[in-house]
Amino acid sequence: MASRTLQPERLLARIRVVLCQTSHPGNIGSTARAMKTMGLSELVLVRPKRFPDPEADALSSNALDVLHGAKVVETLTEALAGTVLAVATVSHEYDLSHSLVTCREAAADAVATARSGDVALVFGTEASGLTADEVRLCSVCAWIPGNPDYNSLNLAAAVQIFAYETRLAAFAGAPTPDDVPDLASHDEIERLHGHLAAVLEEIGFLDPANPKRLVPRLRRMVARARLEQVEVQILRGLLTTIQERKLLPRPPSANSLQKLGNQTPE
Amino acid sequence: MASRTLQPERLLARIRVVLCQTSHPGNIGSTARAMKTMGLSELVLVRPKRFPDPEADALSSNALDVLHGAKVVETLTEALAGTVLAVATVSHEYDLSHSLVTCREAAADAVATARSGDVALVFGTEASGLTADEVRLCSVCAWIPGNPDYNSLNLAAAVQIFAYETRLAAFAGAPTPDDVPDLASHDEIERLHGHLAAVLEEIGFLDPANPKRLVPRLRRMVARARLEQVEVQILRGLLTTIQERKLLPRPPSANSLQKLGNQTPE
Repeated sequence: MASRTLQPERLLARIRVVLCQTSHPGNIGSTARAMKTMGLSELVLVRPKRFPDPEADALSSNALDVLHGAKVVETLTEALAGTVLAVATVSHEYDLSHSLVTCREAAADAVATARSGDVALVFGTEASGLTADEVRLCSVCAWIPGNPDYNSLNLAAAVQIFAYETRLAAFAGAPTPDDVPDLASHDEIERLHGHLAAVLEEIGFLDPANPKRLVPRLRRMVARARLEQVEVQILRGLLTTIQERKLLPRPPSANSLQKLGNQTPE
Repeated sequence: MASRTLQPERLLARIRVVLCQTSHPGNIGSTARAMKTMGLSELVLVRPKRFPDPEADALSSNALDVLHGAKVVETLTEALAGTVLAVATVSHEYDLSHSLVTCREAAADAVATARSGDVALVFGTEASGLTADEVRLCSVCAWIPGNPDYNSLNLAAAVQIFAYETRLAAFAGAPTPDDVPDLASHDEIERLHGHLAAVLEEIGFLDPANPKRLVPRLRRMVARARLEQVEVQILRGLLTTIQERKLLPRPPSANSLQKLGNQTPE
C-alpha cells in the first residue's frame, strides 16, 4: 500500500501538466506562470512548435524554473510514462467518450490518485484541442463548465483553472479513501491492451483488419475500472491461460461432448 | 423584494467586472475573453492607460462584443454606481476592517446578492493591485488561494478564476451531462459473473473449491467499471467465444506447434 500521509505540496509535485503540440511559445510561458501560481512544477511538452523561445521566457513572468525545467518529448505516450492517471482536458465531447467529469471533480480525483503515483493533466493544441487518439491514451475526460456559446478559453487560462482547482483539492483536507491502492501505471495498462488484443485476435473475437468500435470500448471499460497492479497481473494471467488452452487442445470430455450435441455446429 | 427566480444567465448579466487603471491593453482584451468564456458581459474600465487599442482587440479572441461594449469612467465610484455589492479582489492583506473571503465564497455571495441588484468584481493594476482607497470603496475583500511563494497571477488569469467561480455559483447544482449511458442492471451484472466464473473454471483458471481472493477481486473490478448494457453484451460474447474455442479444439497449426515446442509442458 502506498503512503497516505503526503503533504499537499508533495501531492502537487506528482501532478504534471502535459501540453501537446503547442503552437505559440507564449502560451507555454503563460502556462508555466499559471502552474507556478498554484504550486505545480512539472511541465512536459509533446512536440512543441517552438521551444525554448524568448517569447515563452517573456510570458513566464519569472516562472523560469518551471519553464526551463520542462521536459520535451516526441509522443504523448512518453509524456505519460510512469503515470497512474491521465486526465484529458476537453472542450467538446468525443464519440469514444470516456467518463466525462468537471475540472473540479477531475482535480479531486487527481489529488486523491497522486497518493498512489504520478498523475498527468493533458492539454491539446490551441486550435483544436486533443485528438481522439490522444484522448484514448488517457483514463478520463474533464471539461471546464463554461459558456456553451463561446468556448474560446485560452490554453493558459484553461491550465490556470485546472491548476487552481488542483491546488484547492490538495489543500482541502478532503476525505480520503481508507486505503490507497497501488494503481497500475500507464505502461502496464498499455501492455495489458497489447496482450488483450493479441488474444482476442487469436480466438477470432477481433478482426484486426476491422476493429470497429470494439477496441475503443474495451479501452474505455479498462480506463473506468482504474486497475490496480495486482489486477493487471491477474488479467494478464487469465489471458495467458486462454492462450495456452487454445494452443493445447485436449480431447473433449464426455460431458462437454454432450453439451456440444445441443449446440449448432460452427 | 427582488425576484429570486432569475435564470443563471440573468444573474451573470448583473455581475460586472471593473478594471482599475489597467496598464496593458492586451490585458483588457484577455479579460473580455475570460469573461465571455464564463458568460459575463459587463466590463467597466476605470482610467485605462490605452483604450480602445488594437492589442486589446487582438487578445479578445472575438469577445469583441464584451470589449467594445466596455464602459470607460474616470473613478471607481462611477464604476460602482448602482451596485449593491462590490468585491475587492486582493492578493495581499490590507490593514482594513473588511472581511477577507476566498474567491469561491465571494462568487457565491456575488451570485446570491445579484438576485437583489447589481454586483461588481473589482480588479487593481497589474503592478500593485488595488490601492487602499479603492478597497475602502468596496464591501468585501476576496483572494485567490494560490502559492504564497509566487503570487504573480496575471490580471486576466485572476479574472478568469473569479469568472469561473461566479459561473459555477450561478449554475450551482452540478452540470448534468447530456447523455446518460444505459447502465447494466444488477441482474445483468450477476449473470455476467455467473458466466465468467463458469468460463474461468472450464479453462482451469479458477478452482471452484478454492476461489480465494480471485472472485471478490473480479467483482470489485466489474463494480468499479460501472458497465453499460452493451458492454456486458460484449463481454458475454467474448466469454462465449472462449468457450466455443475451448470445446471445439482444432488441430494445432504448424505455427502453434512450433510455439508449443518452446513451452514447458503442463
